[in-house]
Amino acid sequence: MRCTEFDDKGNVKTTAGEFLKSELCIQHGILPRDLRTIDTHHVNPKSAILVRSEAILVNLAHIRALIKSDLVVIFDTFGSTNSYNQSIFIYDLQERLRSGNRDSLPYEFRALEAIFISVVSSLQSEVTVLENMVTKLLSDLEDSIQQEKLKDMLQYTKKLSEFYQGVVSTRDAINEVLDQDEDLAAMYLTAKKAGSPRDPSDHEEIELLLEAYLKQTEEVENKAATLISHMKSTEEIVQIMLDTNRNALLLFELKLTVATMSVGTGALIASMLGMNLRNYMENDPFAFGIVSAATLCTVGLTLAGALRKVKVLSKPYC
Amino acid sequence: MRCTEFDDKGNVKTTAGEFLKSELCIQHGILPRDLRTIDTHHVNPKSAILVRSEAILVNLAHIRALIKSDLVVIFDTFGSTNSYNQSIFIYDLQERLRSGNRDSLPYEFRALEAIFISVVSSLQSEVTVLENMVTKLLSDLEDSIQQEKLKDMLQYTKKLSEFYQGVVSTRDAINEVLDQDEDLAAMYLTAKKAGSPRDPSDHEEIELLLEAYLKQTEEVENKAATLISHMKSTEEIVQIMLDTNRNALLLFELKLTVATMSVGTGALIASMLGMNLRNYMENDPFAFGIVSAATLCTVGLTLAGALRKVKVLSKPYC
Amino acid sequence: MRCTEFDDKGNVKTTAGEFLKSELCIQHGILPRDLRTIDTHHVNPKSAILVRSEAILVNLAHIRALIKSDLVVIFDTFGSTNSYNQSIFIYDLQERLRSGNRDSLPYEFRALEAIFISVVSSLQSEVTVLENMVTKLLSDLEDSIQQEKLKDMLQYTKKLSEFYQGVVSTRDAINEVLDQDEDLAAMYLTAKKAGSPRDPSDHEEIELLLEAYLKQTEEVENKAATLISHMKSTEEIVQIMLDTNRNALLLFELKLTVATMSVGTGALIASMLGMNLRNYMENDPFAFGIVSAATLCTVGLTLAGALRKVKVLSKPYC
Amino acid sequence: MRCTEFDDKGNVKTTAGEFLKSELCIQHGILPRDLRTIDTHHVNPKSAILVRSEAILVNLAHIRALIKSDLVVIFDTFGSTNSYNQSIFIYDLQERLRSGNRDSLPYEFRALEAIFISVVSSLQSEVTVLENMVTKLLSDLEDSIQQEKLKDMLQYTKKLSEFYQGVVSTRDAINEVLDQDEDLAAMYLTAKKAGSPRDPSDHEEIELLLEAYLKQTEEVENKAATLISHMKSTEEIVQIMLDTNRNALLLFELKLTVATMSVGTGALIASMLGMNLRNYMENDPFAFGIVSAATLCTVGLTLAGALRKVKVLSKPYC
Amino acid sequence: MRCTEFDDKGNVKTTAGEFLKSELCIQHGILPRDLRTIDTHHVNPKSAILVRSEAILVNLAHIRALIKSDLVVIFDTFGSTNSYNQSIFIYDLQERLRSGNRDSLPYEFRALEAIFISVVSSLQSEVTVLENMVTKLLSDLEDSIQQEKLKDMLQYTKKLSEFYQGVVSTRDAINEVLDQDEDLAAMYLTAKKAGSPRDPSDHEEIELLLEAYLKQTEEVENKAATLISHMKSTEEIVQIMLDTNRNALLLFELKLTVATMSVGTGALIASMLGMNLRNYMENDPFAFGIVSAATLCTVGLTLAGALRKVKVLSKPYC
Repeated sequence: MRCTEFDDKGNVKTTAGEFLKSELCIQHGILPRDLRTIDTHHVNPKSAILVRSEAILVNLAHIRALIKSDLVVIFDTFGSTNSYNQSIFIYDLQERLRSGNRDSLPYEFRALEAIFISVVSSLQSEVTVLENMVTKLLSDLEDSIQQEKLKDMLQYTKKLSEFYQGVVSTRDAINEVLDQDEDLAAMYLTAKKAGSPRDPSDHEEIELLLEAYLKQTEEVENKAATLISHMKSTEEIVQIMLDTNRNALLLFELKLTVATMSVGTGALIASMLGMNLRNYMENDPFAFGIVSAATLCTVGLTLAGALRKVKVLSKPYC
Repeated sequence: MRCTEFDDKGNVKTTAGEFLKSELCIQHGILPRDLRTIDTHHVNPKSAILVRSEAILVNLAHIRALIKSDLVVIFDTFGSTNSYNQSIFIYDLQERLRSGNRDSLPYEFRALEAIFISVVSSLQSEVTVLENMVTKLLSDLEDSIQQEKLKDMLQYTKKLSEFYQGVVSTRDAINEVLDQDEDLAAMYLTAKKAGSPRDPSDHEEIELLLEAYLKQTEEVENKAATLISHMKSTEEIVQIMLDTNRNALLLFELKLTVATMSVGTGALIASMLGMNLRNYMENDPFAFGIVSAATLCTVGLTLAGALRKVKVLSKPYC
Repeated sequence: MRCTEFDDKGNVKTTAGEFLKSELCIQHGILPRDLRTIDTHHVNPKSAILVRSEAILVNLAHIRALIKSDLVVIFDTFGSTNSYNQSIFIYDLQERLRSGNRDSLPYEFRALEAIFISVVSSLQSEVTVLENMVTKLLSDLEDSIQQEKLKDMLQYTKKLSEFYQGVVSTRDAINEVLDQDEDLAAMYLTAKKAGSPRDPSDHEEIELLLEAYLKQTEEVENKAATLISHMKSTEEIVQIMLDTNRNALLLFELKLTVATMSVGTGALIASMLGMNLRNYMENDPFAFGIVSAATLCTVGLTLAGALRKVKVLSKPYC
Repeated sequence: MRCTEFDDKGNVKTTAGEFLKSELCIQHGILPRDLRTIDTHHVNPKSAILVRSEAILVNLAHIRALIKSDLVVIFDTFGSTNSYNQSIFIYDLQERLRSGNRDSLPYEFRALEAIFISVVSSLQSEVTVLENMVTKLLSDLEDSIQQEKLKDMLQYTKKLSEFYQGVVSTRDAINEVLDQDEDLAAMYLTAKKAGSPRDPSDHEEIELLLEAYLKQTEEVENKAATLISHMKSTEEIVQIMLDTNRNALLLFELKLTVATMSVGTGALIASMLGMNLRNYMENDPFAFGIVSAATLCTVGLTLAGALRKVKVLSKPYC
Repeated sequence: MRCTEFDDKGNVKTTAGEFLKSELCIQHGILPRDLRTIDTHHVNPKSAILVRSEAILVNLAHIRALIKSDLVVIFDTFGSTNSYNQSIFIYDLQERLRSGNRDSLPYEFRALEAIFISVVSSLQSEVTVLENMVTKLLSDLEDSIQQEKLKDMLQYTKKLSEFYQGVVSTRDAINEVLDQDEDLAAMYLTAKKAGSPRDPSDHEEIELLLEAYLKQTEEVENKAATLISHMKSTEEIVQIMLDTNRNALLLFELKLTVATMSVGTGALIASMLGMNLRNYMENDPFAFGIVSAATLCTVGLTLAGALRKVKVLSKPYC
């Protein structure tokens, strides 16, 4: 596994160093099982914050890290598209690790805070991008419903639901640590190393820190949930709009069919009189006028009667 | 950040004063992280009531405030449309802060109660407005289903679901404080300042206060949930009504197609006898009558047969 | 507020007496906030059982009451349609309050039991009425799907969901009290007044009493939930039935269109031979028979071919 | 109430004896409220296991029983269709009650186990019957969608959801008892009678017994949930299949309308030349051929053009 | 029951040995009830990890096992399709059981870990197979919607929901053990046998082991949930796409009906002039041209008017 190490002054000890998993386990006192949770080859691993005796293992969003009381190891996630975020994060992490004097938080919490800031800001920028895309799509869909946009909608729905699952997984990971007093106390690695481990009930700083980023994660979660519910509502209304439109089309089709049938009836009468048979009116001087008028009347009456029926059927829907 | 300060007599100390965030943090003993939760520039922050050592930070609906044992800071929320509510709130807050003598609640709880009253009454008036709009729309939709109203419905659905999320967020914030005995006890800022902090199990006044407003928030939440479920039900029934209407239209279309086909059949017969070919009935004196009658009979029989079939198909649906 | 008072013998002290809220608060040692939860002017308040130092405030279904160790106040709910229930309730309440000797329950629990009996029986009769209405509607809908019935369905859905919400709210109120040992112990008002308040863990009688009515409320809740799920299922199946019917209609329409097209083809041939142009068969003695037969054959073949295609399309759906 | 009593040797003391409720209450030290939960006249009461000082009241599926340390009362449930199950149950119960020596469980737990075995096996056989019916219906529906089967589906959905609710209610009843240590300890009636009631934390035998049947109930619940979800999935896919079929029908209808319109256009041309007006081609020897060819060409071109348009529209859906 | 036994060195003691259930119960100190939960004849039993005094009973996915401090019994699951997995599992299990020296975990946990590894890797490979199938199907469906694929979809939906239920059941089984401190401590069978049972609060190794595999199970669960939600989204969008396509088809049908009606109107006029009646234009030299032009004009105008109406109706939907 490739990773970058920072020492207790925040300086980079090794960049993109290759380590064997087994070495890492022995060196930092962690189990192979634990390392697997931050394995960089899994595509979509569950977020987790594992507190072990000498180290904290973090796997949140794009960051996989191992934090000790005087060492931070950031594992490289290949193929990650967050390289810009990553470099901002590295810079911020170093700043915070170095600022030991003017800040009362111990080394490991400064590392954690840098990680949380990077995670939360990346979630926030992602949700903003999604929000813009979805809002545009939905307002487009309200104006005109096109197959192309529906396919986009499917893509966005999938993306959103995966993003939402990721945020929920991050939130759960933070929550899980917050729920267990022993884990919170065990996160004071510096104190533990100094031989004075914290009492399980004494963990205010880390609790406040976690809670603050939990709130921000929940805010992102709410935004994503709102987007999802907006897509859902739009989907449903679009379906009803298509339905009403279909009924309107059908209604007009009905009127046309009425007209077609009426002129067909007229044509039947006319073509019957066009048969090569004796109708005894061949020479009647007024027959053409009378028959024509009668035919058109029939057409008109059929039309009017059928259209009245159509009106009754369609009354509440237009 | 712009804010208004009230001193321990309820008098305005500073109006719309500009403060730096860092100053505020140092002055009131809070962390930058905490201040961010009530940052007025976020559009849709999660509601929160944060209890810190010397202050209570409140972010509920349109109000962002910092309460100390002898000072209340109300942060201005620019672009807020609640300016009328805001001024009523300011007036009520001052009244309560001044009424120290005849009321047994300490300064910080009087401030909190003023905030809760403003928050709950604003939620209640919002839900009433939404209720009127939605009720009108739904009763309109039951009468006649129009595209325009469906678009309104989509807007209302979105508005309602956002409002509902806001109310739930408010309720959760109150609930969260209620769930933690230490936080409840820590809210007695005056007692703490006087050197006699409350025991974690001794917090009846604030518990009753929070519970009362929790109940009212839940009432608003229930109303919003009812509206949402009414919209959902109406949507579903509207869809079924469109479906039945579509079937009725289709049924009538079917009858018309039957008629068109029948007269078409008649026209076929007639036009065959209209061909410029010898049919040997050219001079038959009764041929016209017989053929005409036969044609009309064919038309009639086809019509009757097809209509009987239509009736069988449509029996259970009209 | 108008209300009726019962003294410790179960006798009516005041009927429909008008009290000021502030008087009530002072007289019974409750806060204005608490009184608001049983305010009779709210249309749809959340159910609640509030236990205060000297009184129990009850707001369940149609009953708003204040119970002390020697006094019961029933608040009038204007516009209530439960006047018959109300008078049965008053009678039962008096009976129970008077029966102090032969019953081991203290005064306040006898009052509570009377209230619970009235609440549960009113919920039960309501759910029975709804059940009858819904069952009839659903069996009607299975037979024939009419717009009128769909509108009824919408009304019932709304009514049912409101009723269900009310029952859930009642259940939650009972549950909330049951969950808190202190509240349960604090409900022994008589014991408290006698100077021997119950220990928080000693509250078996009231727990059993509440549990029994909780079970009955849950039964009503289950019934309502079953009705809601039946309506939902019926809705969905009705939609599928309308869909299959639509396909059946469309299929028949298709057959008719096939016929129309076939006779149209025949008529085209016939009318081409009816053109006032030389076709050189004018005097052919067999032309009429041959052309007529050919035309009818064309009609028949077109019909058969198209109908075979229709059959393939419709095979799995009839 | 009619009931059957078994004494401490498992012998029947009374068969179908008629008891007054009040007698039962006094005799067994239970409250009227408790008896109501196992009242045999309610149609669909909520399952419950009530632990009282001297007795355990059981209401699960088809069995209503009262268990004491030396007596079991089984209440008759009239109109029950489980008479065969009932007699197997009675036989098994007697066997177990008699087997006091070779089994270490006390009398009351042997009675309980007999009840659980009967309840669970009746649930299991019911779910198997439902499973067979539903599986057959669903595979039928996949082959061909018929109105008759859809009505069956509605019936099965209702039956399944009621059965599921019943199983959940049974599971909840067992769970509720398992959750409360005091209730579990209080179920050792024999020990209690012998003057050595169990400590609330000492209840391993009954906990294991309840857990074993809880697991089996949960298995039935899972099966029912799977069936429900299968019906739901089938319903949804059936709807999409009807939709695609409808589109296919519509597409064919479209092609027919194209043909009808084309032949109509041809007929228009032909009938125009059939008008009794001078067209100056009456005697043209080639006019018939030319005009006929032109007409048919028009028909063909219209047909081809329109069908190409149809193809574009339908490309992604066939 | 057929089963395979491994002794404390990891050697196979008995292969496919036949044991009576009663023998097994007596030999390993378990109850018949417990054995039933791992009965190999149930098709779809609920996953469970039961901790008994001398043994751990495991029923997860395809593995049913009984673990003691010096013996592992693997029960054969007939008809299982996992025979390849099974043999890998047996090999891995033996390796682990033998590796007693270099590993600090006691015998029973090494057996458990082998089981968990086999269970989790089988779940992972199953979910990967399902993922590939579903992803392919969904991308196919987006391109073209065919009945055949919809039937596949139904099959996959059923398979996925059953797989998901299985994973959830596995997760619940692990969670249930993790939730109970006593059970965790009781799993130290070797320590118990050595006479030094673990304290209920001292169970870190087994807790970490269970947690690690819980996380991996949850990962599989998340993947399955994502697949289910993707199928759901695709289903919904497919329905909307079918709807928009249907409207497009209907729109084109409408245009064709307009054309048919127009040419029908023209044919009516033409056939009226084709009647064998005197129209006094028989010999008018320009009549044919004028009437033809008028007829075609009528056709054109009707067409144009109706198409404009169609355009208005369809504007927002194309």
